[in-house]
Amino acid sequence: MDFSPSDRAAELTERVRAFVTDRIEPVAAAYHREVSAQADPARWQESPLLEELRGQAREQGLWNLFLPAEHGDAWAEEYGTAGGRGLTNADYAPLAEQMGRVSHLAPYVFNCHAPDTGNMEVLLRYGSPEQQEQWLRPLLDGRIRSGFAMTEPGVASSDATNMDASAILDGDEVVVNGRKWWTSGVGHPDCRVLVFMGRSVPEDDTDTDRHRRHTMVLVPLDAPGVKVERLLTTMGVQDEPVGHAEVSFDQVRVPRENVLLGEGRAFEIAQGRLGPGRVHHCMRLIGQAEVALELAVRRGLARQAFGKRIIDLGGNRERVAEARMAIDQARLLVQHAAWKLDTAGPAHSLGEVSQIKVVVPRMAQDVIDMAMQLHGGGGLSEDFPLAGMWTTARALRLADGPDEVHRGVVARLELAKHRGAR
Amino acid sequence: MDFSPSDRAAELTERVRAFVTDRIEPVAAAYHREVSAQADPARWQESPLLEELRGQAREQGLWNLFLPAEHGDAWAEEYGTAGGRGLTNADYAPLAEQMGRVSHLAPYVFNCHAPDTGNMEVLLRYGSPEQQEQWLRPLLDGRIRSGFAMTEPGVASSDATNMDASAILDGDEVVVNGRKWWTSGVGHPDCRVLVFMGRSVPEDDTDTDRHRRHTMVLVPLDAPGVKVERLLTTMGVQDEPVGHAEVSFDQVRVPRENVLLGEGRAFEIAQGRLGPGRVHHCMRLIGQAEVALELAVRRGLARQAFGKRIIDLGGNRERVAEARMAIDQARLLVQHAAWKLDTAGPAHSLGEVSQIKVVVPRMAQDVIDMAMQLHGGGGLSEDFPLAGMWTTARALRLADGPDEVHRGVVARLELAKHRGAR
Amino acid sequence: MDFSPSDRAAELTERVRAFVTDRIEPVAAAYHREVSAQADPARWQESPLLEELRGQAREQGLWNLFLPAEHGDAWAEEYGTAGGRGLTNADYAPLAEQMGRVSHLAPYVFNCHAPDTGNMEVLLRYGSPEQQEQWLRPLLDGRIRSGFAMTEPGVASSDATNMDASAILDGDEVVVNGRKWWTSGVGHPDCRVLVFMGRSVPEDDTDTDRHRRHTMVLVPLDAPGVKVERLLTTMGVQDEPVGHAEVSFDQVRVPRENVLLGEGRAFEIAQGRLGPGRVHHCMRLIGQAEVALELAVRRGLARQAFGKRIIDLGGNRERVAEARMAIDQARLLVQHAAWKLDTAGPAHSLGEVSQIKVVVPRMAQDVIDMAMQLHGGGGLSEDFPLAGMWTTARALRLADGPDEVHRGVVARLELAKHRGAR
Amino acid sequence: MDFSPSDRAAELTERVRAFVTDRIEPVAAAYHREVSAQADPARWQESPLLEELRGQAREQGLWNLFLPAEHGDAWAEEYGTAGGRGLTNADYAPLAEQMGRVSHLAPYVFNCHAPDTGNMEVLLRYGSPEQQEQWLRPLLDGRIRSGFAMTEPGVASSDATNMDASAILDGDEVVVNGRKWWTSGVGHPDCRVLVFMGRSVPEDDTDTDRHRRHTMVLVPLDAPGVKVERLLTTMGVQDEPVGHAEVSFDQVRVPRENVLLGEGRAFEIAQGRLGPGRVHHCMRLIGQAEVALELAVRRGLARQAFGKRIIDLGGNRERVAEARMAIDQARLLVQHAAWKLDTAGPAHSLGEVSQIKVVVPRMAQDVIDMAMQLHGGGGLSEDFPLAGMWTTARALRLADGPDEVHRGVVARLELAKHRGAR
Repeated sequence: MDFSPSDRAAELTERVRAFVTDRIEPVAAAYHREVSAQADPARWQESPLLEELRGQAREQGLWNLFLPAEHGDAWAEEYGTAGGRGLTNADYAPLAEQMGRVSHLAPYVFNCHAPDTGNMEVLLRYGSPEQQEQWLRPLLDGRIRSGFAMTEPGVASSDATNMDASAILDGDEVVVNGRKWWTSGVGHPDCRVLVFMGRSVPEDDTDTDRHRRHTMVLVPLDAPGVKVERLLTTMGVQDEPVGHAEVSFDQVRVPRENVLLGEGRAFEIAQGRLGPGRVHHCMRLIGQAEVALELAVRRGLARQAFGKRIIDLGGNRERVAEARMAIDQARLLVQHAAWKLDTAGPAHSLGEVSQIKVVVPRMAQDVIDMAMQLHGGGGLSEDFPLAGMWTTARALRLADGPDEVHRGVVARLELAKHRGAR
Repeated sequence: MDFSPSDRAAELTERVRAFVTDRIEPVAAAYHREVSAQADPARWQESPLLEELRGQAREQGLWNLFLPAEHGDAWAEEYGTAGGRGLTNADYAPLAEQMGRVSHLAPYVFNCHAPDTGNMEVLLRYGSPEQQEQWLRPLLDGRIRSGFAMTEPGVASSDATNMDASAILDGDEVVVNGRKWWTSGVGHPDCRVLVFMGRSVPEDDTDTDRHRRHTMVLVPLDAPGVKVERLLTTMGVQDEPVGHAEVSFDQVRVPRENVLLGEGRAFEIAQGRLGPGRVHHCMRLIGQAEVALELAVRRGLARQAFGKRIIDLGGNRERVAEARMAIDQARLLVQHAAWKLDTAGPAHSLGEVSQIKVVVPRMAQDVIDMAMQLHGGGGLSEDFPLAGMWTTARALRLADGPDEVHRGVVARLELAKHRGAR
Repeated sequence: MDFSPSDRAAELTERVRAFVTDRIEPVAAAYHREVSAQADPARWQESPLLEELRGQAREQGLWNLFLPAEHGDAWAEEYGTAGGRGLTNADYAPLAEQMGRVSHLAPYVFNCHAPDTGNMEVLLRYGSPEQQEQWLRPLLDGRIRSGFAMTEPGVASSDATNMDASAILDGDEVVVNGRKWWTSGVGHPDCRVLVFMGRSVPEDDTDTDRHRRHTMVLVPLDAPGVKVERLLTTMGVQDEPVGHAEVSFDQVRVPRENVLLGEGRAFEIAQGRLGPGRVHHCMRLIGQAEVALELAVRRGLARQAFGKRIIDLGGNRERVAEARMAIDQARLLVQHAAWKLDTAGPAHSLGEVSQIKVVVPRMAQDVIDMAMQLHGGGGLSEDFPLAGMWTTARALRLADGPDEVHRGVVARLELAKHRGAR
Repeated sequence: MDFSPSDRAAELTERVRAFVTDRIEPVAAAYHREVSAQADPARWQESPLLEELRGQAREQGLWNLFLPAEHGDAWAEEYGTAGGRGLTNADYAPLAEQMGRVSHLAPYVFNCHAPDTGNMEVLLRYGSPEQQEQWLRPLLDGRIRSGFAMTEPGVASSDATNMDASAILDGDEVVVNGRKWWTSGVGHPDCRVLVFMGRSVPEDDTDTDRHRRHTMVLVPLDAPGVKVERLLTTMGVQDEPVGHAEVSFDQVRVPRENVLLGEGRAFEIAQGRLGPGRVHHCMRLIGQAEVALELAVRRGLARQAFGKRIIDLGGNRERVAEARMAIDQARLLVQHAAWKLDTAGPAHSLGEVSQIKVVVPRMAQDVIDMAMQLHGGGGLSEDFPLAGMWTTARALRLADGPDEVHRGVVARLELAKHRGAR
């Protein structure tokens, strides 16, 4: 048992940390002001600031760092990523934490942002050479962005087998119909393609196994019949210039070659896609929780009330201690899950991945809430990043499956240990 | 011990309930869309919808219902409020709960919204006849609005004796300087006057008792030197067309007659002002928590996942039960505090009032969070009122004193029971 | 809405408070030492101290105070209880709180202890004149004690329809078989009779309604075939000289006249029995929580560490405030439930009664745990009553139905408000 | 980063697991019954069962496994412990978890029980050769037992500098006076010696640094003037035949050679002693939490209520998931602390050790409470080990420093990161 990072992880973490601290943090507020001044989603523009930072990151080989050792080595070599070799989940985890510290900007700088990383992983693992050339390369180049169209407004999407939008194979084509929402990234002017998950059996088919009824297919955003109905707000915020869209699909036809992996294999892909992505999300949230704790302590040290530093009033120091303990436990849990993914594979890491999905967003939400409270009114305002961080953490208690579903997975695995116990 | 409402409270509650249900709820979403479409605070407009509803409420005598039995009978008679007599806190409490159900709109309809109610109470209790004629009457008429300028960005405002903006008496005038924030209502086009609290002794005065150093003074919003620096966001939201402002005061001069009650008596006023206001806030939050619980149950009954109604999955029913128990306990606590205010007076209800200020916003925040979770992604979106309700509840854990300060009051009173215990 | 106690309740509360403070508290520790020195349950003796106190209480008319206004007036007059008239639940509640302060002794002194009060209520409401003469009178006289034999070791007793011990009517007799546990009071030398609940239909009867299959019957403890198998420990403690027994019944025959109310009517009785009993339990626990909070504050004021009074360290004052708020909310909830029982009857107070059963024991457990923590090691020892109080509160999260079942009731009622909502 | 145990740890864990499962678990209940039947502490006897098991463990080299790699290699070789070499904290941790599963018996079987392990470590690190020969050898042989006399009834012992019992050097002797309590192990017939911590400067000495005023000294239990005043109960239980004593010291004189390390160096020793000991305690508690969770799941699978398995009712599965997540996080935190102790030393692991002392007992208490609830009344009884386990976990929230003190340490270290932040 050895809790030290590998030399490689240590070195890259330090380089990413320095880049975030020296180049991203100083401009983060200006970036946020610039993009959030754009009221109308129909005309959102990206800031030139981002392009400049991306160029610098790419020059330093801090580009596409998420590329997995398992599938991404060829591309890592081509892009000079991390010295030319993909990273394990365990080695990437601390990099994601550093990026999470400025999560509305840093992941984009390093071309390591969701949902593109997840979509790129899908293309790496399951994409045909043609699909990779057409979509993966421009994504890796950072020339385009993509969305993931899964959740639907009309059904309880926590049960993915409920998905009712359809992707029916019809000769050389796939016919796509239905309505999706919370498709993140669609508001961005560079967004070009969606990974769409739809039912590919007739509505009344109850014979096919529930987990073989759905198919994933690549749908260009400009395909006739695709319509961005609106950009949703999350806790009142639009998350410019990225956005979360409600998208309708009306008799959209794409070539059969756009199918990923094969008809009826959507759940197979989802399984493989989600493990690493959840590690990324969780490590970024841990980065956010660390920032929140730092802000809380600094504010508590800097201000006085009732003749004392705020940090020394009432239970504030105990709250700081609780935050530290919660963060450290959560980080260890995620690091362990990352290691498990690396050593045992996603199929044997279901419980570990579900655990972090429950533990980390809740922890982050609580730590950030505590930090907001210590800041007084300012904590809720735009003068501190806390409000935005809270919204991110809150949303992640639902995105990629609500807490309740993941607790269900953990419980099911626990009960399975006692099979035959009765 | 009798938990039934008085006949008068029961009758008025039913009338307010019906008005909210029949006239306000059906247009609430349209109102919200209309006002929130206004991006630029400099040009916010009120919706004509509100004026129409206000006219109807006034006609029915459901106008200025907050007017207290103690001080407001003459005005209640003039306005035909509640049959012409002011209400006790205990009788007003259930009306506030009903208004809270559509809290971004209903309190305005009945001219019972913060901070105007608090400011009107101050003018009722402590205002000179001239001050009442100049400011109280148009507020009661609903012709103007007002703000309360207390919290400051530069100091820990949880300790009100920290307030550093100044209101120095100088001959026939008062000279006002400094910077305030979270002055709610200033963004509204009808806002005309601020109740300003400032230090009226020199900065280096340490002889005067800490609670005799501050003065409250009426400052017209158009007085030279008053500048609305910006409208703050709360969790990213601006709360159009009301807003929460940061306001600077640069050598603002107002007549000495604008002083409320007398020099150095700000804390005396604050004490009297806050008791009923906290009951109002808390009862409105209870109304919001009830709405959240209703929405949660309905959603849980209406949708299916994993072959069951969502409400029947996992711990959902237990969460419903916990919410019901938390709401019922909180309501009883507020009702008791209102009764204590009525029967023992604010000076003997400090603990009761501080208790509700801690218990209710936290309860509401938790219940609303639970309801959001049960709604999935929709719960965070503009399709349901939950996100806005959450933000209101969260802000009220800070507004009127953070939880920690109120817990301190409760603890101090508890320890006082054991004086001489050592 | 009026939160003042009635004059009668106020006067009796003061008298009970004085009796508890002046006569019971001073001897409580000595009583506890005396009875707990008896290791062998087979030879437990009551302390003469109790008899003496009971005599004094009876003389003062503070005897059988639980007697309900509804059914107990004749007996109240005979015993001079509370001036000769039974009390409402609302008026009795504060008396129970006072008794709860020394809950291992005071309720016995006033002849107001469980399970005898519940059994006496059953006999008052449902007993025949003969049953009342034979069993109710000596119980009211305090000459004998009784037990309630419901929970069974072999089945999940949280679902009372699971009960599998049998009480089969056979001609002029009832034949009782099976095994019960947690039958409290059986260890006491004065225990004479059990209220036994058993299945009175054949095991394979699935036609009879689940709530009509069981019967309650009076079983003398000395009936042939009744055997006290053992006295159980609760958290390692035996609760001398009262005890909680496991009892077996082997072909026990009692006269048919011993049936209560009628064959198959056990659930009807249980319903009526449990409402007031739960109010009593909960109010006693509130008395315990108040004692725990007092002890915590006193200890915190009396001891120093790290240069401060313990109460002023870390979050201790906040914990005191949280305890005060939790107790006050819980008390209001119980008082409201008592008032609801009085005004609407048990059948319309199911939710209220289930709510207090969840809220109060959990609250008491938490407050007592906090007080133990503030006492350091001493808090777990016999030097303070806290350990015993904790065990009582913990046990009451299971006795009379586990929290989970009561949350289920509350949820069911909440959902029922939305019938037809889909 | 590598979460696999070392080969050595894996192999020993498996052997200890097998020993616990095959030899200890089957006789644990019988052992408990035998020793707990002894009412009078003055006559407690050890069970022959223990001696037999200890012989088997010793034969297998599973004896004194706690011996640290750092200081204990010579002794490990002599006793054939773990193949003749002491273990790191990281390697010993999983063994402690296995022993914790039957914590009232297994640690004694392997001669790895508190407080003897801590005392042996003190003698290993700081004992003179004579002290080692006289006391360490018989402790390693399992021929005698020892106690640790630190906490005092008269002062808040959470602040160890409060300790007021004295150990004054007087020529060739040390004079010991005062009163200690919670001195565990003293009730055992084999207990022979106490590690006593006392003030060795005059009461009015305020010049000496607070952490240099106390001295540790070995005091034989049969020294004239040592008196076991009583054996304390913890939550009503005496913990036979080990016990927790209150001990008075009246002019006890022991040779100066009995001083450990040197006059005024008690805190230096305490620091070194407590790190590994806390890892042991915490890993044993994790073993207990695992047992509790297993029992909960089994009970939940085995019983039915309301037509379902209990485990499938309400929030039970969610509770199982929460327990699994809490246990896994806690274990990772302890393993990390053990690794930190091994690699950075106790002086640089203060935060890590304080963290586990807060996190683990609380987690165990909660998991065990959940398991008790799922068992219904049985969970509180002697039919399951849960009640005893709860008491152990609860006591450990106070033993070795209450939670509050450890949170204070964690907070202090967190604030120190921001030194100069103002």
